[in-house]
Amino acid sequence: MPPFSTVGIIAKQGDPEPVRATLRQLREHLSARRVEVLLDAESAHLLEAAVDAAQPIDQIGARCDLVIVVGGDGTLLHAARSMSSFGVPLMGINLGRLGFLVDVSPEDIQSAVDQILAGELISDTRSMLSARVLGAPEGGETHAALNDVAIHKWNTARMIELEIYIDGAFVSAQRSDGLIIATPTGSTAYALSGGGPLVDPALDAILLVPICPHDLSNRPLVVPGDRQIEVRVHAQDVGHVQVNCDGQNEIRLAAQGRVLIARHPDPVRLLHPKGHDHYDILRAKLHWGGHNSMRAKPC
Amino acid sequence: MPPFSTVGIIAKQGDPEPVRATLRQLREHLSARRVEVLLDAESAHLLEAAVDAAQPIDQIGARCDLVIVVGGDGTLLHAARSMSSFGVPLMGINLGRLGFLVDVSPEDIQSAVDQILAGELISDTRSMLSARVLGAPEGGETHAALNDVAIHKWNTARMIELEIYIDGAFVSAQRSDGLIIATPTGSTAYALSGGGPLVDPALDAILLVPICPHDLSNRPLVVPGDRQIEVRVHAQDVGHVQVNCDGQNEIRLAAQGRVLIARHPDPVRLLHPKGHDHYDILRAKLHWGGHNSMRAKPC
Amino acid sequence: MPPFSTVGIIAKQGDPEPVRATLRQLREHLSARRVEVLLDAESAHLLEAAVDAAQPIDQIGARCDLVIVVGGDGTLLHAARSMSSFGVPLMGINLGRLGFLVDVSPEDIQSAVDQILAGELISDTRSMLSARVLGAPEGGETHAALNDVAIHKWNTARMIELEIYIDGAFVSAQRSDGLIIATPTGSTAYALSGGGPLVDPALDAILLVPICPHDLSNRPLVVPGDRQIEVRVHAQDVGHVQVNCDGQNEIRLAAQGRVLIARHPDPVRLLHPKGHDHYDILRAKLHWGGHNSMRAKPC
Amino acid sequence: MPPFSTVGIIAKQGDPEPVRATLRQLREHLSARRVEVLLDAESAHLLEAAVDAAQPIDQIGARCDLVIVVGGDGTLLHAARSMSSFGVPLMGINLGRLGFLVDVSPEDIQSAVDQILAGELISDTRSMLSARVLGAPEGGETHAALNDVAIHKWNTARMIELEIYIDGAFVSAQRSDGLIIATPTGSTAYALSGGGPLVDPALDAILLVPICPHDLSNRPLVVPGDRQIEVRVHAQDVGHVQVNCDGQNEIRLAAQGRVLIARHPDPVRLLHPKGHDHYDILRAKLHWGGHNSMRAKPC
Repeated sequence: MPPFSTVGIIAKQGDPEPVRATLRQLREHLSARRVEVLLDAESAHLLEAAVDAAQPIDQIGARCDLVIVVGGDGTLLHAARSMSSFGVPLMGINLGRLGFLVDVSPEDIQSAVDQILAGELISDTRSMLSARVLGAPEGGETHAALNDVAIHKWNTARMIELEIYIDGAFVSAQRSDGLIIATPTGSTAYALSGGGPLVDPALDAILLVPICPHDLSNRPLVVPGDRQIEVRVHAQDVGHVQVNCDGQNEIRLAAQGRVLIARHPDPVRLLHPKGHDHYDILRAKLHWGGHNSMRAKPC
Repeated sequence: MPPFSTVGIIAKQGDPEPVRATLRQLREHLSARRVEVLLDAESAHLLEAAVDAAQPIDQIGARCDLVIVVGGDGTLLHAARSMSSFGVPLMGINLGRLGFLVDVSPEDIQSAVDQILAGELISDTRSMLSARVLGAPEGGETHAALNDVAIHKWNTARMIELEIYIDGAFVSAQRSDGLIIATPTGSTAYALSGGGPLVDPALDAILLVPICPHDLSNRPLVVPGDRQIEVRVHAQDVGHVQVNCDGQNEIRLAAQGRVLIARHPDPVRLLHPKGHDHYDILRAKLHWGGHNSMRAKPC
Repeated sequence: MPPFSTVGIIAKQGDPEPVRATLRQLREHLSARRVEVLLDAESAHLLEAAVDAAQPIDQIGARCDLVIVVGGDGTLLHAARSMSSFGVPLMGINLGRLGFLVDVSPEDIQSAVDQILAGELISDTRSMLSARVLGAPEGGETHAALNDVAIHKWNTARMIELEIYIDGAFVSAQRSDGLIIATPTGSTAYALSGGGPLVDPALDAILLVPICPHDLSNRPLVVPGDRQIEVRVHAQDVGHVQVNCDGQNEIRLAAQGRVLIARHPDPVRLLHPKGHDHYDILRAKLHWGGHNSMRAKPC
Repeated sequence: MPPFSTVGIIAKQGDPEPVRATLRQLREHLSARRVEVLLDAESAHLLEAAVDAAQPIDQIGARCDLVIVVGGDGTLLHAARSMSSFGVPLMGINLGRLGFLVDVSPEDIQSAVDQILAGELISDTRSMLSARVLGAPEGGETHAALNDVAIHKWNTARMIELEIYIDGAFVSAQRSDGLIIATPTGSTAYALSGGGPLVDPALDAILLVPICPHDLSNRPLVVPGDRQIEVRVHAQDVGHVQVNCDGQNEIRLAAQGRVLIARHPDPVRLLHPKGHDHYDILRAKLHWGGHNSMRAKPC
């Protein structure tokens, strides 16, 4: 990995005070390390930079060799989708509350940044999904998701009817409130609330988790990551279905009611300081028993 | 129970042909038994009765001592809500596909009606819920539900925040897609899809089933039927929450974001021919093993 | 309620040091309040009382008008089963870790005991179950349970086959690892691990929760508390089935393989200091969000 | 794939009559196709072959280039474990009831065998697990499993305490009735009863499904298939824990209480006639809606 000479900063929106302090500390430390810093609009605003100092998001993607995200998991999800075609790695600093994705605490900024700059890091590649609506007015634009693509009822109290095809073959029909198609990264998010399993981020897999399925034998399904998934929405339901990426990006369904979901061609790379452990974070976030008497014993 | 001299008929809407044949058979049989028949608008239309033959729903409630519903569970739910203040019992004829509530098949109409008229029946009292929105523009009108009152996110992909109070005491806060408050009757409907238990209809209880709760330890809760349940919606979510009764009746939330749910003062009485058994229906509808080798053995 | 003049103490076994300190404090305080104290064998031992000071458990039941349990939920479950025929109320002091049933902390002993003695208390009646094995060698002795009766596979890796009858009518057949029949009190114990709902202790109900059922549509069931439940074990499995009460009391199955479970004729009465709230305990034990920003707001 | 010149037959034990008829038909057809047939002990017995005609199982593995299993999924699981080191593919004929693994019906024997012999087949490679008990008296013998390795409580009504390590790193501690470690093939078996997801057999993954976990946030976990899983049993529980492979093969735990589970070096290859589809079988076995009105429509 080449040294990091240009670093972008993307900040959470709408929560100025805690973000501002962290941003100041971060910029100061990066400058002290003689790294060029590019600010996105929000971080430029919070740092009271000159009016024209803010860089458009595609400039950040094109010019940086590292992007540091300051905020929560939502901010990192947004950054990951924006950066997906640029291949630039991300590092996440949370605002005092550990996230599944933003794992560096503000008090550890300096040491964490120094570790990353020195290459003492763990590179954690996460697959993303791409979703495309067939026959959509936007001409079938592809949308990226790091957590999940959710196809769910909208503006109706009734169940919707979906059919799932994998690599062109019919798999199942369901009546439900919807379907969550998730990456392993997304297995700790909406898919978990829907009853899906935890999936190790290193597994190349896609999850399909039904939301409140009418049929009790309908269960979460995990398939290889290279599968092409097509979801067909019953014609009568097309107007009552919404497609979302990471819960933030709404896609309008076309009359044909078909959505194609597949692994995104570009994964995202998360960088963590040495010592990062995915299951440490799971234990902390899911309130698993983190301590056990057996651990202290010699085995 | 007094003899049944006046019988109302309420028919499923929008599915004319199978309903019409059953209605004809039913009216003919009731007339042969010298019972006065009152038709609702849909059944009058399907039977090509005189223009003024159809009775408004409140006339049916006021004048009949039995109402026969021809349709599916949805038709019976609708009739139960409409009849809730009249105390008139209901009998349900399905259109060839067994329902949880409409249990008489078209081929059994004559014998079932004769049994009911002769008092050879099982009377099955089902509690209902009433829901009232505090501060609502309609002045706090009370809405009835036989299955459930669902409070769920609307026009948003984000979770909503709810607080649950029972008899005035705080019970829990949750972030979720919503909350289903159900009767035992509703325990086989939406609440079951949400992961709730089956509840025997004879139990005087109310179920609270969270929909895709963010907190994994949030579980369905069953409380005594005389409890007053208040659900408070976080102010920021009020515009993104919908309240439904039996999935069919939308209630607009007021700015205060508070909904009161309690047992409805009037239960509904379902009449079944002798031999009816609730668990037979559960086995048939839920595909439980209906047959077991042990049953044939002398015990 | 009459004043409490004689109080029994039942102590947890096998964990002497933390128990001893609490026992001393408790006995001293009760003596200061001029209450006669009867010690069970364990508490007499820990308090180094005279050899003949310990009272047999049935003497404690017959002579006391209050029994204070010092230990965990398991100790209280044991005491409740032992005391079930005596009608004496119980109060539970935990050893520093809140239980679902033992809710008084050691540091609150004095004020809690004073409140109870002064009648400033909440009386919390909990139904129990009784289990009887048909054709058992002990002549069909009845066993009490405050949490649950579990009928589960034993000494086999294979599923067992059970049939459930309620009030004599066949309800369902299942292949599973077993079946938990629980009180509302037991709904926070083994039944919860098996996927059952939480049930308010004031609801007169019995839960049936299958353990790892083979049939995916097999779900927890909640029935009225006055139902007679019969579980029949397939003849081939009788030797591979165990019946337990509160996970502690093993009952041998007879060749007929039939177990009758019903509400125990005698409920147990738990006494709590004023201010006790069942849902406070649920929130603490289940790590529910106990705090919510809405609560502070004027509604 | 070379032509099949020698075919072994392994038959279900203990269910003679339906097996015998199918075996006769199968042997006759194979002979007509000039294929050499090796019989295992059970099929030799049922076919009343000469006393010395039966082949030991390792001869079948060493000499055959195809083994046909006649029985249910349990018979095929047994054959797969026995054949794991020989690399010989398996084909499964059920006895009239579709299995997840034995998918050829008796009435289709002739055409199915002809298709397989002609190479018109689908080759379906399934990973297996190997389990090894550290410090075991048998010297750490490795046991194979096609479905799952279950580590579960034995001869006790109490929960057991386990710790899970993956590739040497601590992942979680749990109190539960046990833990199921399953292949994707096993995801439709015991793991599914325990609440695990369905996993596509083509995914190189291992599932960890807790059995009745005490901690509600404990969820099924799916990890890459090359992970080394170590389960440590709390010292006090070692005598109350049993390890099983496919529910049939008991392994005694050593005092250290440690079990290592990893992907077995040799997968098993299942052969199906052309047209076989895994999801067709899931739909049939899990009673999913196999038919949907959308399917008939031109899309």
